[in-house]
Amino acid sequence: MIGRDLLSMEDLSREDIEKILDTAAHMQEIGQRAVKKVPSLRGRTIVNLFFESSTRTRMSFEIAGKRLSADVINFSASSSSLSKSESIMDTARTVDAMDPDLVVVRHKVAGVPKIIADALSAPVINAGDGAHEHPTQALLDMLTVKQAKGRIAGLTVTIVGDVLHSRVARSNIYGFIKMGAEVRIAAPPTMLPPGIEALGVKAYTSLRQAIEGADVVMMLRIQMERLQGALFPSVREYSETFGLSRTKLRVAKPDCIVMHPGPINRGVELSHELADGGESVILEQVRNGVALRMALLYLFTGRPSKDEEVAALGEETK
Amino acid sequence: MIGRDLLSMEDLSREDIEKILDTAAHMQEIGQRAVKKVPSLRGRTIVNLFFESSTRTRMSFEIAGKRLSADVINFSASSSSLSKSESIMDTARTVDAMDPDLVVVRHKVAGVPKIIADALSAPVINAGDGAHEHPTQALLDMLTVKQAKGRIAGLTVTIVGDVLHSRVARSNIYGFIKMGAEVRIAAPPTMLPPGIEALGVKAYTSLRQAIEGADVVMMLRIQMERLQGALFPSVREYSETFGLSRTKLRVAKPDCIVMHPGPINRGVELSHELADGGESVILEQVRNGVALRMALLYLFTGRPSKDEEVAALGEETK
Amino acid sequence: MIGRDLLSMEDLSREDIEKILDTAAHMQEIGQRAVKKVPSLRGRTIVNLFFESSTRTRMSFEIAGKRLSADVINFSASSSSLSKSESIMDTARTVDAMDPDLVVVRHKVAGVPKIIADALSAPVINAGDGAHEHPTQALLDMLTVKQAKGRIAGLTVTIVGDVLHSRVARSNIYGFIKMGAEVRIAAPPTMLPPGIEALGVKAYTSLRQAIEGADVVMMLRIQMERLQGALFPSVREYSETFGLSRTKLRVAKPDCIVMHPGPINRGVELSHELADGGESVILEQVRNGVALRMALLYLFTGRPSKDEEVAALGEETK
Repeated sequence: MIGRDLLSMEDLSREDIEKILDTAAHMQEIGQRAVKKVPSLRGRTIVNLFFESSTRTRMSFEIAGKRLSADVINFSASSSSLSKSESIMDTARTVDAMDPDLVVVRHKVAGVPKIIADALSAPVINAGDGAHEHPTQALLDMLTVKQAKGRIAGLTVTIVGDVLHSRVARSNIYGFIKMGAEVRIAAPPTMLPPGIEALGVKAYTSLRQAIEGADVVMMLRIQMERLQGALFPSVREYSETFGLSRTKLRVAKPDCIVMHPGPINRGVELSHELADGGESVILEQVRNGVALRMALLYLFTGRPSKDEEVAALGEETK
Repeated sequence: MIGRDLLSMEDLSREDIEKILDTAAHMQEIGQRAVKKVPSLRGRTIVNLFFESSTRTRMSFEIAGKRLSADVINFSASSSSLSKSESIMDTARTVDAMDPDLVVVRHKVAGVPKIIADALSAPVINAGDGAHEHPTQALLDMLTVKQAKGRIAGLTVTIVGDVLHSRVARSNIYGFIKMGAEVRIAAPPTMLPPGIEALGVKAYTSLRQAIEGADVVMMLRIQMERLQGALFPSVREYSETFGLSRTKLRVAKPDCIVMHPGPINRGVELSHELADGGESVILEQVRNGVALRMALLYLFTGRPSKDEEVAALGEETK
Repeated sequence: MIGRDLLSMEDLSREDIEKILDTAAHMQEIGQRAVKKVPSLRGRTIVNLFFESSTRTRMSFEIAGKRLSADVINFSASSSSLSKSESIMDTARTVDAMDPDLVVVRHKVAGVPKIIADALSAPVINAGDGAHEHPTQALLDMLTVKQAKGRIAGLTVTIVGDVLHSRVARSNIYGFIKMGAEVRIAAPPTMLPPGIEALGVKAYTSLRQAIEGADVVMMLRIQMERLQGALFPSVREYSETFGLSRTKLRVAKPDCIVMHPGPINRGVELSHELADGGESVILEQVRNGVALRMALLYLFTGRPSKDEEVAALGEETK
């Protein structure tokens, strides 16, 4: 079912998502051991090919790979010095020629991971491409919601912020709708993708209406430079109309959880009290990110032989 | 005895210091094997969270961690892009949510490792915070002195240079005084912390008087930009009055050793002949740094289970 | 036979080269296993000391080291911040004091790896020094040619481009001549090193004459800033006179292979169709680079004890 590459949530079936989330739950158990390491991917090489700078996502993949005993190689390049697509492709092919077992790609241009995946022998995981998709973020978000709420189907999930430019929003919309949640988005009109309702979401320009009765509110990080006129008048006005505070959250369900992919602009899209409050599962998202990426590396890396498969998830012996 | 975090030499008791130095001596033995690796921290994750750039300290911790079989993850961030304390804390909490077993923190602002340690689940080791403390440097310096001289108590240790801005000086003052050494400092009046004698040191503005009869002379690295007027007239004059040469060293004990935390400004605080001479233990300090940090990672990382403890320092079996 | 350090192809004997290429062929076999890892260098520390930025060479050494189970530590420094030779030497001595088993050095100034090697305890491999030598590139090129053609002796190898500034060209000239190939170089007069024929090569200023009847054509990467007047009139004219296309290649042997050390300036020194064509062994060069560097790390790292030697190249046991 699960394909060779993980490029988008749009590509995944409901069964794929369930398998990934179930595998991630197993991986969480490894993270609670004293020795947080299993030999599943011993002798495998994973390359983090990040053309766009990233800290948390790169670290999360690196820790995930090392907990599976893979060798993790980091490659970082500013997009500026590799601006021509030929150079990107030559870089990717060069990496591929070193025989990695899996390549994680991030690029500021939508579609680049797909182009790279088509050219490489190794499977590719998209770690974020422009405003297109960020499937590993969506999957860890879904894992977090499933564990906080016990289910995904039937929940009301509200995504708030600059949906137009957000790969996190796009991937989560695909994922949560596939799993049977009701997805609402709330954004200023200039940040609402035209025709977004065709994906099955309900679009609001009123934060209050969007979060009324919600089980989950996911706040998006706003790029501060987008709050200087063309898309929105000011930071202060954004914070007042689309920033979330505990007071505003009262119209949601009493046990509503608050999510954010990080890093947070505190006091802009999210108040301090909420970022650190009991409603927040933001650090759970980060924690689940490692387990989720362990699951993805395990499922997408070239399959181990039968003998290895049996031993792979057992406690490591010394 | 030893606490959860290692933030300052001020916090350590004499017994703590002795235990750390003894453990480091064991670790030195591992460094002399052909296979310089033991499984003590296998499956543990250590994060180097460096908000200030560093080469030798980061490498030293990385090598130390790998020799104990830990997974070491490097995180580097310029302080500029993370200037608000909220961002630093969110970064630290994000790292913590990935369940590291220990976090090594360096920051240009004094006190940041303490603030981070208070917020994290993982133990924190301070790898240098502003002009406050650099306890791992002081401990490796003490290990070096102890092995060169056979003891610390009763020795005369002179620290020379910009004591006011030096976290290395501050940590060494606390450490050597605790272990019973006589500590002298020598600096231009503008680089002497007011009231420093309250710590139990003797302060001099004459290099000659400060090193007369000394067993150990520790030269501090001078920031060249501090030798342009406000604190000191010129590089040349600093070198002549507070730079150390073999001639000037003649008033110290005949077997006096010369130390420097590196990197050296050759010809400024230390002459070429002394940097490379038989008096210098500077490369011993670097070598001991790895063993000392192995000891700290071993002692401060979440304790292994009993079975592991027995096996942990044995020769690695294949 | 093989010395302590690998600094230049000029130093290697024919027997050394044969031994290295034979060992690399063994290493290629490891790269084809599902578990691409052997315990040969377990517990050894390899430091990549790169004073000049590099991606593919650093990654190739890092992957090679990890496949041999070594701990690989990356040290990158811009040459600018370490411009004085004292600083470079102090940095190198500091690294050496951390007891690495091997140090890989790249520097933009010719001769620096040699100076460093003379000062260090650990063996040094030159990963490129200025316009001097790049022996590991030459060795992987020779491995590629040997496997593509079944032999090196008697082949005609043409190297095209800015030979004057190319460490790749220099190392390949030494290597291929030693192994009995006929080496020709083709370059504009301003890019031909004076007296180069003394090395035993034939120099041409006509691309056509140089590749007529060639078995191998190796295109060098041209620095675009060198095509702005002083050395050559323009990029377009360089591409027309010294760039290689399939049409121009027709005068070579029918089974002539095309090589390039990367990264390619597509459309400048090499046409798109050739870069991606069946004549190109460019990705084979990258792939062989990992195996070749595994061989070098294995041969130059402080020799394992006898017991370890027996086990070292066996399949890893869990």
